[in-house]
This record gives sequence, structure tokens and C-alpha cells, in this order.
Amino acid sequence: MSPRDAARDPHDPARQSAKRRIVTWRSGEPTVVSDLLVGEEPLQIRVAGVGAVAIDVAVTMRTPGNDIELAIGFLVSEGLISPSSVSHMTFGDALHDAQPENHLTVHLNTPFDATAIAVRTTVATASCGICGKASIDEVAARIPPVVPLAHLSAAAIGALPDQLRAAQPLFDRTGGIHAAAIVSVATSGSMALETVREDVGRHNAVDKLIGEAAQRGALPLTSHVLLLSGRCSFELVQKAGAAGFGGIVAVGAPSDLAVETAERLGICLVGFVRGSSLNVYTRAEIVSN
Amino acid sequence: MSPRDAARDPHDPARQSAKRRIVTWRSGEPTVVSDLLVGEEPLQIRVAGVGAVAIDVAVTMRTPGNDIELAIGFLVSEGLISPSSVSHMTFGDALHDAQPENHLTVHLNTPFDATAIAVRTTVATASCGICGKASIDEVAARIPPVVPLAHLSAAAIGALPDQLRAAQPLFDRTGGIHAAAIVSVATSGSMALETVREDVGRHNAVDKLIGEAAQRGALPLTSHVLLLSGRCSFELVQKAGAAGFGGIVAVGAPSDLAVETAERLGICLVGFVRGSSLNVYTRAEIVSN
Repeated sequence: MSPRDAARDPHDPARQSAKRRIVTWRSGEPTVVSDLLVGEEPLQIRVAGVGAVAIDVAVTMRTPGNDIELAIGFLVSEGLISPSSVSHMTFGDALHDAQPENHLTVHLNTPFDATAIAVRTTVATASCGICGKASIDEVAARIPPVVPLAHLSAAAIGALPDQLRAAQPLFDRTGGIHAAAIVSVATSGSMALETVREDVGRHNAVDKLIGEAAQRGALPLTSHVLLLSGRCSFELVQKAGAAGFGGIVAVGAPSDLAVETAERLGICLVGFVRGSSLNVYTRAEIVSN
Repeated sequence: MSPRDAARDPHDPARQSAKRRIVTWRSGEPTVVSDLLVGEEPLQIRVAGVGAVAIDVAVTMRTPGNDIELAIGFLVSEGLISPSSVSHMTFGDALHDAQPENHLTVHLNTPFDATAIAVRTTVATASCGICGKASIDEVAARIPPVVPLAHLSAAAIGALPDQLRAAQPLFDRTGGIHAAAIVSVATSGSMALETVREDVGRHNAVDKLIGEAAQRGALPLTSHVLLLSGRCSFELVQKAGAAGFGGIVAVGAPSDLAVETAERLGICLVGFVRGSSLNVYTRAEIVSN
């Protein structure tokens, strides 16, 4: 039984981060170290009007902790309830919910105006890939493992962030935009940026890349790495897996769920890349000088 | 007629960024300069199966450009269509859509399996606040202007990022997490962090704050500023407005739509805060030494 299968206390602070053994490279030398990853799990928010059954309103990928605040704050800031209408909150029950601590029902002392969420029930956003597929198992059932990469060069990886920055016209001008790139990997280990896209939303930048590859018939992107200017979340690993990327290189940190999903899909996940300093979270055996 | 009302070319690169006059502070001295903001607009993605009417699938806040790639990449990476099923694409028409360039229909040469999106039609995410409310006008109709702040101190603002970082236990340990804080503003101009929340999702950190305030009956948060560890998007301004914050201080850059929305709601928006260096995007007249 994995730690994720165990019934867990919704208020357990240990869920906010996860320890993991990784390989960290410093100036060409790999070392195995223990690293702390930020916790990421889905929270399903339900609302029950007085005397009515609960309605599913939202699923958000969040760091566990302060979940009651999160649910109330989401519903209030989206204009779906007023703060004074909250009666009490209940987490899921083990009978109906595989992960009771990831389901939270807000019970109201008033009726719930379900028409308020009607406008949003016909839509989803590009950053809402988790909706309805709350577990790694579900992702793995939908997305086959990628064709594994045979070898990556730590030096070539370390050079990627500067290459990406040089290819970011909008960032230079506005300072406020994410970038992502399709990077080809030669058998010699050399890497080259093929396509770069920028967007205010990190998921959009990745979707633009995958759409570009789809249009030129290049999917699945075997022998390619997805390069990200920022952090790496679960949803981005999902998208990378769906496009067949054998690796992900992120300038920022990955979440625990991102690492677990990459491991399941056979993706080599590298993060915290700062010149000759980088961390390898999965498939570390393929990274060498 | 504002620039947003004019019919625009979906492929016009000028929409990727917007020029704006702002006040930039350097070492206690304000200067009016022209600044470039990253463009942010909603894109509604529709899918039409062969011989069927189009179905709304998603609305995403994106930087305009490469919209066709974005729509195809989103649908492919979410497993909703296969790349070979795309027949052609059409943008919206002026008869039915107020912003034709922000509606894109993907026409398939196969039927569209609408049950594939059924799982997501009952849910939305915390980062999907835009769904169904695609314009600033709609936000302004739902959220009243905030109670305006009378005065903010540039020096006090400049000290906030270090105070936030010092109050971020998870960031110190994982390096991969967003933070947000409720900051009180005294009439003397001094500022103090009241509540700090961290999350892998920036929207969640803000929702946690608003929920915390709702639970102690502190809404609306007049005489308070929302402090963000990262960039400021349209959706975060919406949430700030709904909670009644008179100001937003972001360590990162805001988007053009974030600035326009803050202006409409009467929120003083400050960004790019690096010690004594910061930019004031709206209500610059209230910021002084």
C-alpha cells in the first residue's frame, strides 16, 4: 500500500511536502541527496444548500492545508456564496470517496443557487486538466508510457535556460510571460530548440507547442524534451505525456505529484536548472556528462 | 470606442502586448514612463463534429497569438480529439460574438464525442474564474468598486517582499510554491502582514486568504492590500476586488487586462517590486514617500 492509499488526516501538515531521493548535479558531479518537494493534490469542492444534496462545483490542484479556507474563499471570491451562508463543512467519507481528505462539502444555511454555476458548467479552462481525473492511476490509464530517452547530457541541459531566454521576445519586452519549447535530442546528446512559444499562462504555452507539433504531423514527440521557463505541475506532466515527450526540463521546481506522474509515465524530469547546477527527479540513470 | 471594442485581426501581433504610461519608483524618486505589458485576453474554444453544431469546450485566459495551435494543442493534450480529425478552423463572427477574434471553432472531419468532455462539464477550477464572464464589463457589473485607499508609502511597499519571504516556511523548504498575504495599511502609511498563505497554485493561495478573512468576519478587506509573490493576472484582480482589497502589490509583472480591471475597480496596482524599485500601474496619485 502506497502512502497515497492510506486514510489521512485532512489537517496533517506532513501532506504539504514530500521527501524524495534525487540526483543533484553541481559542476559536472552527480550526488544522491534527499530533497523536499511541494505537495500537490486535487481538492474537490462541493456545496450543499439547506435540505438539498451536495453539488460538485470545482476541482482544484492545491497544496493540502487550510482546505476549509480555500473552499470558502473560492466560493466567496467567485461570487457563488456569501460568507454568512456557511453552516458547516464536512470532508468526504471513506465509503464513497477513495480519498476522503480530498473532498470537502460546504453546507449552507440557505438554499444554493445552482444557476450561479450554470455559466461555468459548460466550460473548462486550459489550466483545468485535472477535472474529473483525480488520480495518477486515471492518467496512466488514459496516457501510455512514453518511448524512453536513452541518454541526456547534463551540460546540454544546463545550457537550455539561456537559450530559451534568448528566444523569448515578449519576456524581454514585458517581463511577465511564461515560455516553453520543444527541444530535440540527438543520439550524441546534443540538444536544439525547435519551437518556442510564450503565454501569460504556462499551460497555454505548452498547448501552443503541442498544437504546432500536431499541425506538422510531428506527434508523438519521441526523442524530444519539453523545456519550461517556470515550475512543473502535475497538469504539465500530463500534457507532456499526452504529446509523447521523453523528458521535461524545468527552470523551476516540480511538485510531488508532478514527479510521481513523470515516474509512472517514464518521463525523465529535470528541474531547478541554473547553469551547471540541476536536479534530476526521475530516470536519473540516463543523465551523464 | 475603446481599442477593445474595435474589430481586430486574430493574427495581429500588436495584441500580444500593450503600452501604458505608468509611474516607476527608483530609490524614492517617481518618474512617469511608458511601459509594455503582456497581453491577456479570453479565448473560447469550440468544437464542431462533422454535421453537428459547435459545442463550447473551454475558455482560457491567454496571450493572443498562435490561437489555432493553442486550441488544437489543448484538445489533443486533454485527449478530446486526435490530431488527424481536424478539418478546418474558424474564428467567431461579428454577428454573434462581441469579440470574434476571441472565439475559435475547431471543425472536425469526424463526429465529436461530447461525452469525452462530460466529466469536466460539472466542474471548474479555482484558476478558471473567467469562465463565462469574458469581459471587464461583466466583472464590473458583478463586483462593485472597492473603497479607495487614501495613501500608500513607496518605502513600506518596497519592504513587503522580504517580509513575505521571511513568512514562507514552505518556500524555504521546497523552493516551489506561491505565497499571498493580507497586509493592513495604517493611516500613517505603515503596513503589516496579517495573514500569509502558500500554495502550489497562486489562485489557491489567494482563495485561502479570502476564506480566512470570511471566517473571521473581516470581509470586505478595506484598508488592506493583497500581496502576491508572483505575477498578477486578470483573475487575481477579480478575486481581490470581490474581497474588497483597496490595493494589490505583486512581486512580478501584471498583464494588460489585470491593469485595466484594477483601474475599473479602483484598485491601486503595484508590481515589479524589488526593494526601492517598483512600478505603479493604477491610482499612482496615492503613492508617495
